[in-house]
Parts: sequence; C-alpha cells; structure tokens
Amino acid sequence: MDSVEGHKGPVRLALDAEGGDYAPAEIVAGAVETASAHMHVLLVGRPEIIEPCLQEAPAEIRRYVDIVPATSVISFHDEPAWAVRNKPDSSIVIGARLVTDGVADGFISAGSTGAMLAAGLLVVKRIRGVKRPAILVVLPGMEGPIAFLDAGANANCRPEHLVEFGVMGAAFARTVLGIAQPRVGLLNIGEENSKGNELTVAAHRLLAGSTLNFVGNIEGRELLYNHADVVVTDGFTGNVALKLLEGTAQSILQRIRAAASSSARAKLGGLLLRPALQTTRASLDSEEYGGTYLLGVRGLVVICHGSSSRRAVANALRFAARAAEQGLVTQLPVDVEAALAASTRASDTVGGEVS
Amino acid sequence: MDSVEGHKGPVRLALDAEGGDYAPAEIVAGAVETASAHMHVLLVGRPEIIEPCLQEAPAEIRRYVDIVPATSVISFHDEPAWAVRNKPDSSIVIGARLVTDGVADGFISAGSTGAMLAAGLLVVKRIRGVKRPAILVVLPGMEGPIAFLDAGANANCRPEHLVEFGVMGAAFARTVLGIAQPRVGLLNIGEENSKGNELTVAAHRLLAGSTLNFVGNIEGRELLYNHADVVVTDGFTGNVALKLLEGTAQSILQRIRAAASSSARAKLGGLLLRPALQTTRASLDSEEYGGTYLLGVRGLVVICHGSSSRRAVANALRFAARAAEQGLVTQLPVDVEAALAASTRASDTVGGEVS
Repeated sequence: MDSVEGHKGPVRLALDAEGGDYAPAEIVAGAVETASAHMHVLLVGRPEIIEPCLQEAPAEIRRYVDIVPATSVISFHDEPAWAVRNKPDSSIVIGARLVTDGVADGFISAGSTGAMLAAGLLVVKRIRGVKRPAILVVLPGMEGPIAFLDAGANANCRPEHLVEFGVMGAAFARTVLGIAQPRVGLLNIGEENSKGNELTVAAHRLLAGSTLNFVGNIEGRELLYNHADVVVTDGFTGNVALKLLEGTAQSILQRIRAAASSSARAKLGGLLLRPALQTTRASLDSEEYGGTYLLGVRGLVVICHGSSSRRAVANALRFAARAAEQGLVTQLPVDVEAALAASTRASDTVGGEVS
Repeated sequence: MDSVEGHKGPVRLALDAEGGDYAPAEIVAGAVETASAHMHVLLVGRPEIIEPCLQEAPAEIRRYVDIVPATSVISFHDEPAWAVRNKPDSSIVIGARLVTDGVADGFISAGSTGAMLAAGLLVVKRIRGVKRPAILVVLPGMEGPIAFLDAGANANCRPEHLVEFGVMGAAFARTVLGIAQPRVGLLNIGEENSKGNELTVAAHRLLAGSTLNFVGNIEGRELLYNHADVVVTDGFTGNVALKLLEGTAQSILQRIRAAASSSARAKLGGLLLRPALQTTRASLDSEEYGGTYLLGVRGLVVICHGSSSRRAVANALRFAARAAEQGLVTQLPVDVEAALAASTRASDTVGGEVS
C-alpha cells in the first residue's frame, strides 16, 4: 500500500471496547485478531473489564494492543449530543479525542450510532469546505462492493449535498475499495434524466455537470447489481433503503429456513445445502466490510453495527487501516474543493443554469 | 361477500388483452381461468389476435368472456399523457372508457404503468375531494398482506397527502383485504416521533391527530413484518422501496441458486429443497396479490406487472372483483371527506397547531 500521508510507523486505531452488544469480549477479540507490527490498536474503556479479555492474547500480539482508560459509557438511551457534551470521560468521546489529538489514525465503535455521529460532528468536527458529513455504507453487490451514501446522517438534503456525497464516495471508492475511476450513480425512480422528485431531478443536473464519472440514475431494483461503484441519495431515502435491504434479506432467509423444515425431504436438502447457504448469508453480510464511515469530518470515524462480532470488528479495523494508509481523510477536502471549483466554473459557463 | 353497491348482476371487469410481456396468450388465459357466472371479463384489444387464444376455452366459460375491439396499443416507448390523449382507439384508453361509461366495474392492464396512470387521471379522473391519487401495492408480509402506498404516483408529496394515502389505504385494507380495523404506519427512520425528514415529521403529527388507527413509524427493517396493515410514504420513497424489495429478493435467490450448484453435495441439497424454495419464492411473489391499484380515481384501475403470467392476471381479476363487490371506489370519497372534516375539527381545537 502507498503511504500517501507519509506514514512511517504503524497505523494506530482507537477502538471502543465498551460499544456494542458483545462488548468487551468480541471487540477485544477482533483487536487481537488484527493487531500487528503494522497496526496498533488502542482499546478505549475501563481497564478492569478489558484486561481479562486480553489474558489469552499471545504475548507477541499483546504488545501491539494498548489500553486507553475511559471511565463511562454512552448508552443507546442517552440523547447523543447531550451525552457527547456531558460525558467527556466516556469511551466514545475519549476515542474521538485520540483522533483529534493525532494519537490515533482513526476511531471505531460498535456503540450508539447517534453518539458516534455527534462525536464526529462535535469533537472531530467537519472538514473545511464540507457542508454535510455523510454516512457511507459498503453494500454487498453481486459483483463486488458498492459505496452507498448518505445512509442516515442528513434526513433533509439539497441537490448540492448529493454532489458532495458523490465526491466523498468517489474518494472512498478509490482509496479504500481500490477502484481507480469509480462510476457514480444517483438512486432514483426511472432511468430517464427527467424522472424523480424535486431533489433528484435537480441533483441529476448538477451531477451530470460535475467532474464526477456520473453514470445516471440507479433504480432500487439495480442497487445490488453494480451498475455504479458509488450510489448517492439523501439520508432519509438512504436509511430507509439500507434498513429495507437488511429486513428483506432477513425475511427471505427466515422463509427459507421455515421452508427447509417443512418436510423430511426438505430437511435433508437443507442439511446438505447448509454450507452453501452460509456462503450466501456471508455474501450478504454487512460484517464483510466492517461498518459504516462518517465521511467529511477531520478524522477517520467508523461506526460498526451494534451486533458486531469479532469478525466484523476485525474487518472494520482492516478497512480503517487501509483508509488511513491511503489518506482518505486528507484526500476528501482536496476533492471537495476541486469539485466545488469545477461546478462554479460550469455554472459560470452556462450562465447560471446549474444553480 | 356483501354487495355494498347493490350489485345484482355479475361483476364485469375490462382486461387489456394487449398489455404486458406475455400478451395476449397469458392475459387471455388468466381471463379464461377466472371468468364465471359471477365475473364476466371484457377483453380489450384486436379481435383477430384475441380470438385464436380463446379457441380452446370451454364453451361454458367462453360465454362469460367478451371481446371489446381496440385497434391500437400504447407501448412502453410512448409518452404516457401524450399517448392517452392521442390514441383514443388504444386498448388502455378504451378499457378506461368502459369504466367511466359504467360498462365495466374495473379495468386491469399489464401494459405501460405510465399510460395506465395517465388514463386513470385523464380518462377515469380523480374522485372529488381526493387531492392525490396514489398507487397501492400489496406487499408479501411475513404474516399476511400489507397495503403499501404511494408506490410511485406522486414523487413530491406534502404531509397532508400522506394522511390521504392512509385514509385510502385503510379503505382498501378493509374492503379488499378484509381487515376490520387496519393499523396505519408511516415509513420512517427511527421509532421516535421526532425522527424523520421534514415531510415525515410533519406527516407523523397529522397522522397522530387523525381518525386513523395510527401505530407510528415503521422502519425499513420492519416493513415486511406486519407491524402495520397499511404503510404510507411519499411516491419517491415508495417506488425506491418497492423496487429495492424486488431487487433484493432477486439478488438473494440468485445467490442461493449459485451456491446450490457450487458442489455435488449442494446440488443434491438444492434438488431436495427445490419444492420448499419454490414455496418461498411464491410467498415473495408480487403476482400473489395481482397488481397495484390506482386509488383515488372514479373507478377501479389495476396495474399489473409487465411480466404478469396467467396466474398474476387471474389473481388480479379476483382481487379486483372483490374490490368492486365491496364498493372500494364508492367508499373512498366518503372516507376521505370524513377524514378531512375530522382533521379540520382537530386543527380548530388545537388552535391551528396541526397545519
């Protein structure tokens, strides 16, 4: 991997040991699985609950794992912005501070999404030039990963925000997914340019006039079929879509399980097919790409699913390391400014038609 | 079934014999499968292409099927509103006319959705008091059907439109799905009242103050889990969601098929499990409930999927007959007016807070 930021030492990632349904055991296990001479993990949380989980870690791994004490936890019940302001000793706030202080190259948590979003905006703070930080999720497309944003940070968006999402998503696809010329699509209804609601019709025009490799509208039916590498949408539609994907997958797998116990014949079939079905489930699994990314803040912030296993945590650490080494966060303001400059030129040229 | 409209004779349904990927053969076959002394079908299209498809129909069925000549077809390439205005002899316009002229109790087509929508609005025309006719689709919930609207008629909505969708959806659930007290939910992000975008936050307030049996927000993850019988959303989100459901289901079944041919063991398992998987596929099948309904126009208008088989057409005819016999279309303006009156009273009471 190139060292865009001129990284000399190992990547250092802060990891919230207290966040998620299976904290601290699975979180710490994920750290132990991935820590190495190239990637140090800073476990943030109460030392007395982290230490026991590290007992069995091999000594050669143990020295790549540090503990940064935090005495409280922000729970799912806390109002996010209030909690971030009033719990400075919480694992989420301390983890975010490690990033702003330059101690860590990124911060990862499977805790409250709302609190992570608030910590991103209030502690890490937005990048100069970025109007709307957005949540990016990597979807399991039929032919590979698809960067999808905004998955829920901005319920109300203006057309220019969707262009910004495209710029940030493209930077992510290049640096983290390794796609040289990412194709950017717009989640919309219908294939024609004129289709959509007020937001998408206007966003389509802006995207078509941008420097992005814009490939047009992507309908819901095509979302998982890799017609684009990056798909942008507003945070309301994105969040509905993401949860609908999860719910539909769960519902179908439940139906299949029920069908596979409906007769002796089906039971045997289900038994024989089980490994193949597990592969299918894994291919749909959000854990594969390890969490969602808060793009547009001055540091790498990764939010994992509350139900993250050690595998999810390990994958999140690996992807975050890649993002850090490739300089995703330093690339974003450059790309956003360039896109802004280009769109200003374009709107000058066409006499303000793109407005 | 009650005969709300005081139907004495059989239900008469007009069916576009020229619309859909498998027209006319599968369309006519669907008609032959369902036509009876209680349900007459009027096949609309060119007699010379319909007649051959009726050759093998039993004589006792044949007399419940009539042909209404139409000399042209509106294709998917035609601009819908233009085509409806300029092709008065097309099967879609003639079918819609049969409804407005009182010759048919409903019109069903698997042709261009856009043209059906245009024919609904321009020929059948909207019900007095209904601001926004909407497309309702019946989703295959885990525990039974869920009425979901708007699935695409109105890309831009105001909060009061979502209440109207709730009223129309509840009327549909009562008359066609036989649910006495339909629970109405709002597709949204998050469970709390305060969550959502500008549209859903305002719509939530209006719905909570309405006479509907409103059960609150439904997240994308829960959409197929029957937490509500009727789920309302704007036509943009609804269309994205519907297509995403279809695309996700297709993607998962493809992944399973691929997995089931990955080894000899998996192949045998797939073979044994095949009947059970077919049951699963059928349970997800949009053909089960036969098409989408354009609610809010002065007649029963049902739009089937372009790929409708004879089974889909037969189901659409059966559901449409039920809707006609239960007086769905005559019930709608009554319910819409009552809801409007109730919401006016409510907003008077709270001093215009609900506005």
